[in-house]
Amino acid sequence: MSIQRGRHFLQIPGPTNVPDRVLRALNRPTVDHRGPEFARLTRDLLEGLQQVCKTSGKIVIYPSSGTGAWEAAVVNTLSPGDKVLMFETGHFATMWRNLAVRLGLQVDFVPGDWRRGVDPAVVETQLAEDRGRAIKAIMVVHNETSTGVVSRVSEVRKAIDRVGHPALFMVDSISSLALTDYRHDEWGIDVTVGSSQKGLMLPPGLGFNAIGEKALATSKSARLPRSYWDWEAMMNANQTGFFPYTPSTNLLYGLKEAIEMIREEGLEKIFARHNRLAEATRRAVRAWGLEVNCLNPQEYSNSVTAVRAPEGQNADALRKLILERFNMSLGNGLGKLQGKVFRIGHMGDFNELMLAGTLSGVEMGLALAGAPFKKGGVQAAIDYLAGNE
Amino acid sequence: MSIQRGRHFLQIPGPTNVPDRVLRALNRPTVDHRGPEFARLTRDLLEGLQQVCKTSGKIVIYPSSGTGAWEAAVVNTLSPGDKVLMFETGHFATMWRNLAVRLGLQVDFVPGDWRRGVDPAVVETQLAEDRGRAIKAIMVVHNETSTGVVSRVSEVRKAIDRVGHPALFMVDSISSLALTDYRHDEWGIDVTVGSSQKGLMLPPGLGFNAIGEKALATSKSARLPRSYWDWEAMMNANQTGFFPYTPSTNLLYGLKEAIEMIREEGLEKIFARHNRLAEATRRAVRAWGLEVNCLNPQEYSNSVTAVRAPEGQNADALRKLILERFNMSLGNGLGKLQGKVFRIGHMGDFNELMLAGTLSGVEMGLALAGAPFKKGGVQAAIDYLAGNE
Amino acid sequence: MSIQRGRHFLQIPGPTNVPDRVLRALNRPTVDHRGPEFARLTRDLLEGLQQVCKTSGKIVIYPSSGTGAWEAAVVNTLSPGDKVLMFETGHFATMWRNLAVRLGLQVDFVPGDWRRGVDPAVVETQLAEDRGRAIKAIMVVHNETSTGVVSRVSEVRKAIDRVGHPALFMVDSISSLALTDYRHDEWGIDVTVGSSQKGLMLPPGLGFNAIGEKALATSKSARLPRSYWDWEAMMNANQTGFFPYTPSTNLLYGLKEAIEMIREEGLEKIFARHNRLAEATRRAVRAWGLEVNCLNPQEYSNSVTAVRAPEGQNADALRKLILERFNMSLGNGLGKLQGKVFRIGHMGDFNELMLAGTLSGVEMGLALAGAPFKKGGVQAAIDYLAGNE
Amino acid sequence: MSIQRGRHFLQIPGPTNVPDRVLRALNRPTVDHRGPEFARLTRDLLEGLQQVCKTSGKIVIYPSSGTGAWEAAVVNTLSPGDKVLMFETGHFATMWRNLAVRLGLQVDFVPGDWRRGVDPAVVETQLAEDRGRAIKAIMVVHNETSTGVVSRVSEVRKAIDRVGHPALFMVDSISSLALTDYRHDEWGIDVTVGSSQKGLMLPPGLGFNAIGEKALATSKSARLPRSYWDWEAMMNANQTGFFPYTPSTNLLYGLKEAIEMIREEGLEKIFARHNRLAEATRRAVRAWGLEVNCLNPQEYSNSVTAVRAPEGQNADALRKLILERFNMSLGNGLGKLQGKVFRIGHMGDFNELMLAGTLSGVEMGLALAGAPFKKGGVQAAIDYLAGNE
Repeated sequence: MSIQRGRHFLQIPGPTNVPDRVLRALNRPTVDHRGPEFARLTRDLLEGLQQVCKTSGKIVIYPSSGTGAWEAAVVNTLSPGDKVLMFETGHFATMWRNLAVRLGLQVDFVPGDWRRGVDPAVVETQLAEDRGRAIKAIMVVHNETSTGVVSRVSEVRKAIDRVGHPALFMVDSISSLALTDYRHDEWGIDVTVGSSQKGLMLPPGLGFNAIGEKALATSKSARLPRSYWDWEAMMNANQTGFFPYTPSTNLLYGLKEAIEMIREEGLEKIFARHNRLAEATRRAVRAWGLEVNCLNPQEYSNSVTAVRAPEGQNADALRKLILERFNMSLGNGLGKLQGKVFRIGHMGDFNELMLAGTLSGVEMGLALAGAPFKKGGVQAAIDYLAGNE
Repeated sequence: MSIQRGRHFLQIPGPTNVPDRVLRALNRPTVDHRGPEFARLTRDLLEGLQQVCKTSGKIVIYPSSGTGAWEAAVVNTLSPGDKVLMFETGHFATMWRNLAVRLGLQVDFVPGDWRRGVDPAVVETQLAEDRGRAIKAIMVVHNETSTGVVSRVSEVRKAIDRVGHPALFMVDSISSLALTDYRHDEWGIDVTVGSSQKGLMLPPGLGFNAIGEKALATSKSARLPRSYWDWEAMMNANQTGFFPYTPSTNLLYGLKEAIEMIREEGLEKIFARHNRLAEATRRAVRAWGLEVNCLNPQEYSNSVTAVRAPEGQNADALRKLILERFNMSLGNGLGKLQGKVFRIGHMGDFNELMLAGTLSGVEMGLALAGAPFKKGGVQAAIDYLAGNE
Repeated sequence: MSIQRGRHFLQIPGPTNVPDRVLRALNRPTVDHRGPEFARLTRDLLEGLQQVCKTSGKIVIYPSSGTGAWEAAVVNTLSPGDKVLMFETGHFATMWRNLAVRLGLQVDFVPGDWRRGVDPAVVETQLAEDRGRAIKAIMVVHNETSTGVVSRVSEVRKAIDRVGHPALFMVDSISSLALTDYRHDEWGIDVTVGSSQKGLMLPPGLGFNAIGEKALATSKSARLPRSYWDWEAMMNANQTGFFPYTPSTNLLYGLKEAIEMIREEGLEKIFARHNRLAEATRRAVRAWGLEVNCLNPQEYSNSVTAVRAPEGQNADALRKLILERFNMSLGNGLGKLQGKVFRIGHMGDFNELMLAGTLSGVEMGLALAGAPFKKGGVQAAIDYLAGNE
Repeated sequence: MSIQRGRHFLQIPGPTNVPDRVLRALNRPTVDHRGPEFARLTRDLLEGLQQVCKTSGKIVIYPSSGTGAWEAAVVNTLSPGDKVLMFETGHFATMWRNLAVRLGLQVDFVPGDWRRGVDPAVVETQLAEDRGRAIKAIMVVHNETSTGVVSRVSEVRKAIDRVGHPALFMVDSISSLALTDYRHDEWGIDVTVGSSQKGLMLPPGLGFNAIGEKALATSKSARLPRSYWDWEAMMNANQTGFFPYTPSTNLLYGLKEAIEMIREEGLEKIFARHNRLAEATRRAVRAWGLEVNCLNPQEYSNSVTAVRAPEGQNADALRKLILERFNMSLGNGLGKLQGKVFRIGHMGDFNELMLAGTLSGVEMGLALAGAPFKKGGVQAAIDYLAGNE
């Protein structure tokens, strides 16, 4: 690869472009994590994440990836051999399932085609059949980063309620939080799993849980062994503004700045911005004559669009060409979708012109790869963006 | 203006986007500018700028804008009342003229229409008529940032040589250096005027001169008062690696990094890259049915394209709309061109996708402004870029 | 607290002052953690940490605190109910014990007075008595950050060998690595536990394990549930330069720079530098008429000196006064030592003048607090430093 | 020089340590210097510098060193051949004199011994003798950075007033501003000359003038040629928030942050802080048995202490040893004082512990150099600082 000039376009679906403001915040000198300044920071952050999750419940923050926050949700609420209901919506749902299996749970994994979200009707049926109430938790990925499909979490909640099933409802909101409407309290989520490197516009390195009352109560008797992830130790220490072990001080500085940026723009405006950029992306895809991986328009993702590679094309070869020629990283197909899709991340600190550059890179890449496609995707996107405030 | 997210597109024709590497270099702790580490830095920088200017002559670097480097060129080589020949190629040539007049020179200012560069034939005629050799210097702006027109400096040199005129040849290379082919020694330039914030990819704050033997000799007898700009004091101090007064330490760190980046890519590749991006820009302009300000294809600028606003449109209103809606700054029309052109900077740390984003912002702005134009400029640009390595 | 100017003195025993070079590295734009550039980075880092740990074995790096790396060592090598031998050398040893208990291990915890390291003779006795070889692991904290006491790890190894006991030997090297002589392979360590925020001069957020052959073999049959911390998944992904989940990209950039700095200075010189600064600190403490918490000169810490507060003085009140008046953070007494000691961190990117400033802050604080002490500690330290290269 | 770890102590009397907050501000992306955001910035800065100078008059800011601001003061107010009164208080006063001579002024240069400030009685005598009012300006350096001597500017003003002399009073406040009490309006200063790299805590690269009504009026008829430095062009452009040529955008960001920091602490507290640190420094010097260069306690500098090297010692050899052994830069003796003094800068973002480290470096250096001195300077300083709030 020759020397590349100009800004790299990091259009993978996370980590996302870290805004300058956040980068500068990350760079502040590390302070004493047992001192008074730090205690104020902790309290601000917990309050800020409550707002972002729309909850008045507890928040815990880990020095970890999002995977760590998955594990935390599981080990704090469940016991060895517990049965849980999960859905094969894509690669990350499958990974979470694998984690649960490894930790000794018994997983009912509803198969899926990686192009649709969780079907609330299926949830209802499954739970209705569980007359013995053996299922202890229903675990759903809100936005499947690998497929660009959103599961309708609020409808899943209604399905659970219709059955009156007592299982915990745990949702991975890693790539939907601060990107797509999400309401921990109103939707009756018991545990929300989040991380830093998507809508929160930070580098990776922070995972967190938002925890409802019911989950908290359940955690008292949950018997999976836990220490690093233990909610109780974390919440106890947090009460005075501290952590039970050394927190990721500099990432927490960045989180404070990111929350401030989210407040300035406002969650509803953030959702609308992403919705608009995502729609422009899909119009480009269709204009190229390509196919959006997500089949159901109700389940389109605000954060990422997975595009089916044209017939006979290897999506990874296309990605490689685009990286080398145009200094842009696109997301690869994961698991079952390897080589079959490329994913365009359009989330976080992102705007119209960045998107236009991104889509231009894809269109030029398709042309240079000799792929069967129609020109005009970028034009369709900017026509939409210019016509639609 | 509402909250804007994502990266600002700084598409004015300088200051240009400062690359991350340079920003990080700027941020190093300030050191003693009279210490051994600094002396090494000074020597590296002088050598680096020699390479960039293609000269084996002297370099002096000022804590100043490019305007300061104009003044330095003048006060070191000329005496009160000296006659100089200048050309009205645009706003910056006019400003340089004004500076010369203020400092007490007598300026022959050849009028121009701000759409063409210096005509070598006119130079030849003017000099031929100067039988008394009263003209002490010919001063030309290589790339007129206000008009997007390049003057053919090497042909001007030939014109001077044909007449055998002894005047100094001083060239403003502020917005051409490290962007367009430029050869201080080979083209017989006596003084080159440069600054930091264009092809050198730095923030503004450094001006410099490259100085040929003849200019150096002339400076011994030049009588315009000077102190801050005095070459001799500067060169004497530089010999040991220091400066006669406090230099701009942190910008000099950035300059070292920028020179390193220029070496990595190579000047010829840098010129080719800019040529390609400039041509793509012009194709977009033509596809929109708009007019490039520069009339002569031999004089197209690698750095900036000035676009004539559509009939009946105020270019500044368009720029304002684009800034507010799409978070992009374009260059305004300066002097005679105020309101009549907008300028697209495409120089420095810049690449295809940044350009596609830039042009998309212009196309969407034109649409939203209700300007008479044809769609398809972005398409024309990316078709060119994808077809033409 | 009034406005404070000048640099904060962060003299807690970690996180330590992050050097400018590392801060700048942290600030690089996040790249695709599944791209080719990242794969090269991963390989460099694993190799670099091998050098730092003096091992040719495996390294795994987690997005976690050091506590996470403790948990990783445990869950990868042990099974529910396994018996392990640990030593109450201080707060962190106690915390590691608590973690082991929480995860379901049976811990033989040899009591201690928090002023001495692990006694190799006791290790020998305990292991000799374990005729059934029930003890599966011996877990030792090399440098007890809470007490400023180093346990003689190589002698513990010899004690184990004398008995010929097959237990794994796992060492927490969090606050000794790149600070004090440490040799994973030569000393026969099975698992080394490390983290980023001490000798590696990074912000907190990375934990790691160095893993010997025997530990690796044991991990195949270890039955504690694990997923996030699972070595095998990590090592498999690392083989191609990637991670099984999103790594802490920006901290990894910083790690690369830190390793480079460690290579430039050289481990032996780093150890000597810390030894010298630690000795100067102890001389100051003695000159003040105060007592170093560590009782055995063979067990003095290179990284941190815990100082017993003068009779009748609350160490935390003194720390508060010093923070408010002199903008310096000192480490507090932890656990049993709360209020009884203050800890002076002197590790990482640290030098003589920073130490002199630090000790001056302590001496002025003692004076202002009206504590019973003798002046002259700073003088003793600088006399030593000036006389002793 | 071997690898040095830990923070460099930059104790030259400017550039000073740039605080992290300012470094981060410098790092913001460059914006359009002709856009609305920039116009707001300009207005904030001009207002801020008025507060710092205690004036309601005009401020102009140049991309230049302080030397440029000297030149600006001269060329805007004087005409070729004008007579000015200056005082040989040290190296910088001599440099300013040289500049004035080079620009064609006739300088009455009152000789001095580089250990005392301007004598108000001498000013009075000289002006009284100037019956023809030929003297057009009195030019004084407030704090002589080369000698550590402050001239009593307000008393000089009174001396001028007693004579009723109409000459302009121009003061170089480069190393006193925001460090020592300074009142442009109240003290009847006509032009104040300042720069960025001392009390303003920025890297070098900005020079400025504060301009009183009388100076402004005089500038209308002043005939020294000027263009870059022309006040009128600058003030005209500033009215709309812009600059007549490209300003040093990123340094201006830093200036905004620095002014904010100055406001937070308050000028009077800043003066008191520097006074205290300077007094502690002098006590150290005396305890060492060395001599402060400044002879008159009324003229002690808050910013810098020049220390006479012990008999038979070369100050530069001592400085070199300290740089190599302790990673600290001290100021060298300039001009007549070369090799005879070393200068300890104690200004800007500076505090007690940084000073204690600084003085420890000097004391250790003296010891290692085998210089004749008494130990105990650091002790004297910290005793003072601990006893004296």
